[in-house]
Amino acid sequence: MTMRPRRTLGLLLSDAVDRAHGARLDQVAAARGVALQRFPLSRAAAALAQIDVAFFSRELYEGSSLRTPGPLSDAFFRVADAAPRLRWLHVCSTGLDLPQYASALARGVRVTASAGVTAISIAQSAVAAILAQARGFDHWLAAQARREWAPLTGADKPRELHDLRVAVIGAGAIGCEIGRLLKALGMQVVAVRRSSEPTPPFDDTFALSQLDDVLPDCDWLVLALPLTPATRGLIDARRLALLRPGARIVNVARGELVDEAALCDALVQGRIRGAYLDTFVQEPLPQASPLWDLPQVWISPHNSAASQGHEERVVDSFVRNLERCLDA
Amino acid sequence: MTMRPRRTLGLLLSDAVDRAHGARLDQVAAARGVALQRFPLSRAAAALAQIDVAFFSRELYEGSSLRTPGPLSDAFFRVADAAPRLRWLHVCSTGLDLPQYASALARGVRVTASAGVTAISIAQSAVAAILAQARGFDHWLAAQARREWAPLTGADKPRELHDLRVAVIGAGAIGCEIGRLLKALGMQVVAVRRSSEPTPPFDDTFALSQLDDVLPDCDWLVLALPLTPATRGLIDARRLALLRPGARIVNVARGELVDEAALCDALVQGRIRGAYLDTFVQEPLPQASPLWDLPQVWISPHNSAASQGHEERVVDSFVRNLERCLDA
Repeated sequence: MTMRPRRTLGLLLSDAVDRAHGARLDQVAAARGVALQRFPLSRAAAALAQIDVAFFSRELYEGSSLRTPGPLSDAFFRVADAAPRLRWLHVCSTGLDLPQYASALARGVRVTASAGVTAISIAQSAVAAILAQARGFDHWLAAQARREWAPLTGADKPRELHDLRVAVIGAGAIGCEIGRLLKALGMQVVAVRRSSEPTPPFDDTFALSQLDDVLPDCDWLVLALPLTPATRGLIDARRLALLRPGARIVNVARGELVDEAALCDALVQGRIRGAYLDTFVQEPLPQASPLWDLPQVWISPHNSAASQGHEERVVDSFVRNLERCLDA
Repeated sequence: MTMRPRRTLGLLLSDAVDRAHGARLDQVAAARGVALQRFPLSRAAAALAQIDVAFFSRELYEGSSLRTPGPLSDAFFRVADAAPRLRWLHVCSTGLDLPQYASALARGVRVTASAGVTAISIAQSAVAAILAQARGFDHWLAAQARREWAPLTGADKPRELHDLRVAVIGAGAIGCEIGRLLKALGMQVVAVRRSSEPTPPFDDTFALSQLDDVLPDCDWLVLALPLTPATRGLIDARRLALLRPGARIVNVARGELVDEAALCDALVQGRIRGAYLDTFVQEPLPQASPLWDLPQVWISPHNSAASQGHEERVVDSFVRNLERCLDA
């Protein structure tokens, strides 16, 4: 057995992660011949020059909204962005489009995301809304708010789940888990993604270029794709009009994928029968938005990923990356 | 091939079923050497003495509530109860405890239920509510009603589905389908039923006599058992207090299984964190009930079975019974 040369690595991290996971991180490094120097945020300002790696963990994000960093995030990035030797930043989010990463990206720091850590929770939220609205809870809860005993009867009764067809745009970790769960519930599920290559667990797969042909057969359209210049405004008034009358929409991706004003019109007019929206063009959703008051729209405040296990999974993601980095 | 002796059978049925399924019913009978005489409700009063069989189909129930027959039901049973030769009544419900069946039962008419026709839809409604509340939609929708952007953070974040333990009391068609779906979602699910014999798809099975030992480990308690003298008031204040603090309850069986006042107290005090209730001691739920206003309580108006395929499945159930009856 050969000993590798002993190195040191300076890590900026939150005080909470330092307390809960410091020993584990030390071991991961020590097992690879590296001495980890941990700098918890509250004591890191004096050690700027010793920071090589920064870990923006999940609890540091709380109080932030997508486009507006909160005070904990500000405190963290005041240090990280001032650390002259910083060469790697691992972040808790899945996307790298948050404003607090801009400075690190701009100066060439390698930024890695916590891929997949929220996929299962987000998928569960999406499927919860689809199943609940498909069974009639949008109607029942709106009636309950009026203290009205109003059973769904006749033609208003919900359609059978196995007769409903869902198109999921995006077949990443979130989209595939949504597909898997909806299949388990007996629904018909197709994917729309870059290529039309068959993609389990979906019944069928279409390329994004075929989207306009898919929409007229959809009872549900689920957005689970990244926001890029090519996908911004993908679901506009024209495409909303292509959906089957009475279709519903789920957006657990990014608000800017949808023309929000056009969606609102379609909802008010009843052409789109309902929606579950986790994301919005402007977050927090402005007080004046008409979306708040539509009973057929269910809103979660960019919170579909919320779960007790989230912070742990972000730490696990960082540890996996740290191992890979030290093994390289 | 021998010809059976030709018989006739007089059938009281709704005008709608007569129109949509008359030919199919004729064929079922003819294939067994029986000439079916169909008497649609609107023309049946003149043929009372010729009615052998009555089919109380689903659409005749609309406008009824559990304990209060509606006008279509009244019209049907005015005829059925006056038919002197009536020997078999097939009904659309799963239970035989509806007041409109009392007279037929009392005079010795054989009454058969449409077993299982609502199980899948009811199970889907129960699972929809469990999944949606487990993900945080009770909180999110209550915040939305106040136009409040209020993400779940810290200790308020939902627990992982795979950490949640659900006890389903009753392992009939509804209970088993609830178990199957919750397992597919990754939850822990145990059954409580007459015997403790292992029952797929449940992780574990307990006898009803063990209920008090099961309750302290439950995050969700689901009632899917029949109402009998032995189960009336099963979930009383004492048993509610045995549940894990913050547990939730689903009742898709009968309101009388639960001490409704005690449940209400436990919900208001927060010991029971939420509920999905489809059934109530008094239906329609009285305007004065405090349950209407609790945002952590989701109410469907004895409508959890609602689905487009329900009427068809009731007809199928009648046809299967008719075949069996004519084959006997």
